[in-house]
Amino acid sequence: MANVQIEELRKKLDEINDNLLDLINERAEIVQQIGRVKKTQGMNRFDPVRERKMLDMISEKNEGPFETSTLQHIFKEIFKASLELQEDDHRKALLV
Amino acid sequence: MANVQIEELRKKLDEINDNLLDLINERAEIVQQIGRVKKTQGMNRFDPVRERKMLDMISEKNEGPFETSTLQHIFKEIFKASLELQEDDHRKALLV
Repeated sequence: MANVQIEELRKKLDEINDNLLDLINERAEIVQQIGRVKKTQGMNRFDPVRERKMLDMISEKNEGPFETSTLQHIFKEIFKASLELQEDDHRKALLV
Repeated sequence: MANVQIEELRKKLDEINDNLLDLINERAEIVQQIGRVKKTQGMNRFDPVRERKMLDMISEKNEGPFETSTLQHIFKEIFKASLELQEDDHRKALLV
Protein backbone atom coordinates (compact mmCIF):
# COMPACT_ATOMS: atom_id res chain seq x y z
CA MET A 1 0.00 0.00 0.00
CA ALA A 2 2.78 2.40 0.96
CA ASN A 3 4.58 1.46 -2.25
CA VAL A 4 1.52 2.32 -4.33
CA GLN A 5 1.29 5.67 -2.55
CA ILE A 6 4.98 6.37 -3.14
CA GLU A 7 4.69 5.39 -6.81
CA GLU A 8 1.81 7.83 -7.29
CA LEU A 9 3.63 10.64 -5.54
CA ARG A 10 6.73 9.93 -7.62
CA LYS A 11 4.67 10.16 -10.79
CA LYS A 12 3.55 13.62 -9.70
CA LEU A 13 7.14 14.51 -8.90
CA ASP A 14 8.29 13.42 -12.37
CA GLU A 15 5.65 15.67 -13.95
CA ILE A 16 6.82 18.59 -11.83
CA ASN A 17 10.43 17.85 -12.76
CA ASP A 18 9.45 17.96 -16.45
CA ASN A 19 7.67 21.27 -15.98
CA LEU A 20 10.63 22.68 -14.04
CA LEU A 21 13.01 21.58 -16.77
CA ASP A 22 10.90 23.30 -19.44
CA LEU A 23 10.47 26.43 -17.38
CA ILE A 24 14.16 26.76 -16.49
CA ASN A 25 15.09 26.39 -20.17
CA GLU A 26 12.35 28.85 -21.20
CA ARG A 27 13.80 31.26 -18.66
CA ALA A 28 17.26 30.73 -20.15
CA GLU A 29 15.97 31.65 -23.62
CA ILE A 30 14.57 34.93 -22.32
CA VAL A 31 17.83 35.66 -20.53
CA GLN A 32 19.65 35.06 -23.83
CA GLN A 33 17.31 37.52 -25.56
CA ILE A 34 17.96 40.11 -22.84
CA GLY A 35 21.69 39.51 -23.28
CA ARG A 36 21.44 40.16 -27.00
CA VAL A 37 19.54 43.43 -26.53
CA LYS A 38 22.03 44.52 -23.87
CA LYS A 39 24.90 43.67 -26.17
CA THR A 40 23.60 45.93 -28.92
CA GLN A 41 23.47 48.72 -26.31
CA GLY A 42 26.89 47.95 -24.84
CA MET A 43 25.14 47.41 -21.49
CA ASN A 44 26.65 45.28 -18.74
CA ARG A 45 25.08 41.81 -18.59
CA PHE A 46 25.24 41.55 -14.81
CA ASP A 47 22.82 43.84 -13.02
CA PRO A 48 23.04 43.40 -9.23
CA VAL A 49 20.07 45.73 -8.59
CA ARG A 50 17.81 43.66 -10.83
CA GLU A 51 19.07 40.44 -9.19
CA ARG A 52 18.35 41.86 -5.73
CA LYS A 53 14.83 42.78 -6.88
CA MET A 54 14.17 39.22 -8.07
CA LEU A 55 15.43 37.82 -4.76
CA ASP A 56 13.19 40.25 -2.84
CA MET A 57 10.21 39.13 -4.89
CA ILE A 58 10.85 35.55 -3.79
CA SER A 59 10.85 36.70 -0.19
CA GLU A 60 7.54 38.54 -0.69
CA LYS A 61 5.77 35.72 -2.49
CA ASN A 62 7.08 32.62 -0.74
CA GLU A 63 4.38 30.65 1.09
CA GLY A 64 6.56 27.62 1.84
CA PRO A 65 7.20 24.85 2.62
CA PHE A 66 10.71 25.88 1.57
CA GLU A 67 12.40 28.61 3.58
CA THR A 68 12.98 31.84 1.64
CA SER A 69 16.74 31.48 2.10
CA THR A 70 16.63 28.01 0.53
CA LEU A 71 14.69 29.29 -2.47
CA GLN A 72 16.99 32.27 -2.85
CA HIS A 73 19.95 29.90 -2.87
CA ILE A 74 18.35 27.80 -5.66
CA PHE A 75 17.49 30.91 -7.67
CA LYS A 76 21.03 32.26 -7.27
CA GLU A 77 22.28 29.05 -8.89
CA ILE A 78 19.86 29.66 -11.78
CA PHE A 79 21.01 33.30 -12.08
CA LYS A 80 24.66 32.24 -12.10
CA ALA A 81 24.06 29.64 -14.80
CA SER A 82 22.10 32.21 -16.83
CA LEU A 83 24.93 34.71 -16.68
CA GLU A 84 27.37 32.03 -17.80
CA LEU A 85 25.05 31.27 -20.72
CA GLN A 86 25.07 34.93 -21.77
CA GLU A 87 28.85 34.96 -21.51
CA ASP A 88 29.07 31.87 -23.71
CA ASP A 89 26.85 33.59 -26.28
CA HIS A 90 29.09 36.63 -26.13
CA ARG A 91 32.25 34.55 -26.58
CA LYS A 92 30.69 32.74 -29.53
CA ALA A 93 29.74 36.11 -31.06
CA LEU A 94 33.32 37.29 -30.69
CA LEU A 95 34.56 34.21 -32.51
CA VAL A 96 32.30 34.80 -35.53
CA MET B 1 13.57 51.21 -27.66
CA ALA B 2 16.05 48.75 -26.21
CA ASN B 3 14.79 49.66 -22.75
CA VAL B 4 11.19 48.89 -23.74
CA GLN B 5 12.34 45.53 -25.09
CA ILE B 6 14.25 44.76 -21.92
CA GLU B 7 11.29 45.77 -19.75
CA GLU B 8 9.00 43.41 -21.67
CA LEU B 9 11.46 40.55 -21.44
CA ARG B 10 11.90 41.20 -17.72
CA LYS B 11 8.13 41.05 -17.25
CA LYS B 12 8.15 37.61 -18.85
CA LEU B 13 11.08 36.63 -16.63
CA ASP B 14 9.19 37.74 -13.51
CA GLU B 15 6.23 35.56 -14.52
CA ILE B 16 8.52 32.60 -15.04
CA ASN B 17 10.17 33.26 -11.67
CA ASP B 18 6.71 33.21 -10.04
CA ASN B 19 5.84 29.95 -11.74
CA LEU B 20 9.20 28.45 -10.76
CA LEU B 21 8.66 29.52 -7.16
CA ASP B 22 5.22 27.87 -7.06
CA LEU B 23 6.44 24.74 -8.77
CA ILE B 24 9.49 24.31 -6.52
CA ASN B 25 7.30 24.69 -3.44
CA GLU B 26 4.68 22.33 -4.88
CA ARG B 27 7.51 19.84 -5.45
CA ALA B 28 8.60 20.32 -1.83
CA GLU B 29 5.09 19.46 -0.60
CA ILE B 30 5.10 16.20 -2.53
CA VAL B 31 8.56 15.36 -1.21
CA GLN B 32 7.22 15.97 2.31
CA GLN B 33 4.35 13.58 1.63
CA ILE B 34 6.77 10.95 0.34
CA GLY B 35 8.86 11.49 3.47
CA ARG B 36 5.83 10.87 5.68
CA VAL B 37 4.90 7.64 3.88
CA LYS B 38 8.51 6.45 4.05
CA LYS B 39 8.63 7.26 7.75
CA THR B 40 5.63 5.05 8.51
CA GLN B 41 7.46 2.25 6.71
CA GLY B 42 10.82 2.91 8.36
CA MET B 43 12.27 3.47 4.87
CA ASN B 44 15.39 5.52 4.26
CA ARG B 45 14.58 9.01 3.01
CA PHE B 46 17.59 9.22 0.69
CA ASP B 47 17.32 6.97 -2.35
CA PRO B 48 20.36 7.36 -4.63
CA VAL B 49 18.87 5.10 -7.33
CA ARG B 50 15.77 7.25 -7.57
CA GLU B 51 17.90 10.41 -7.65
CA ARG B 52 20.05 8.97 -10.45
CA LYS B 53 16.87 8.14 -12.39
CA MET B 54 15.62 11.74 -12.11
CA LEU B 55 19.00 13.08 -13.27
CA ASP B 56 18.96 10.68 -16.23
CA MET B 57 15.50 11.90 -17.18
CA ILE B 58 16.84 15.45 -17.36
CA SER B 59 19.56 14.25 -19.69
CA GLU B 60 17.00 12.49 -21.91
CA LYS B 61 14.57 15.38 -22.07
CA ASN B 62 16.81 18.44 -22.18
CA GLU B 63 16.50 20.44 -25.38
CA GLY B 64 18.56 23.43 -24.18
CA PRO B 65 19.66 26.16 -24.16
CA PHE B 66 21.09 25.06 -20.80
CA GLU B 67 23.65 22.26 -20.86
CA THR B 68 22.44 19.05 -19.21
CA SER B 69 25.25 19.30 -16.62
CA THR B 70 24.06 22.79 -15.64
CA LEU B 71 20.47 21.60 -15.21
CA GLN B 72 21.60 18.57 -13.24
CA HIS B 73 23.55 20.86 -10.94
CA ILE B 74 20.45 23.03 -10.33
CA PHE B 75 18.27 19.97 -9.72
CA LYS B 76 20.83 18.52 -7.30
CA GLU B 77 20.48 21.73 -5.26
CA ILE B 78 16.70 21.20 -5.25
CA PHE B 79 17.12 17.55 -4.22
CA LYS B 80 19.49 18.52 -1.41
CA ALA B 81 17.10 21.17 -0.10
CA SER B 82 14.23 18.67 -0.31
CA LEU B 83 16.10 16.10 1.72
CA GLU B 84 16.88 18.73 4.35
CA LEU B 85 13.18 19.58 4.48
CA GLN B 86 12.30 15.93 5.13
CA GLU B 87 14.94 15.80 7.84
CA ASP B 88 13.48 18.91 9.47
CA ASP B 89 10.04 17.28 9.41
CA HIS B 90 11.52 14.17 10.98
CA ARG B 91 13.25 16.17 13.72
CA LYS B 92 10.03 18.05 14.46
CA ALA B 93 8.16 14.74 14.68
CA LEU B 94 10.72 13.44 17.16
CA LEU B 95 10.19 16.52 19.33
CA VAL B 96 6.40 16.07 19.54
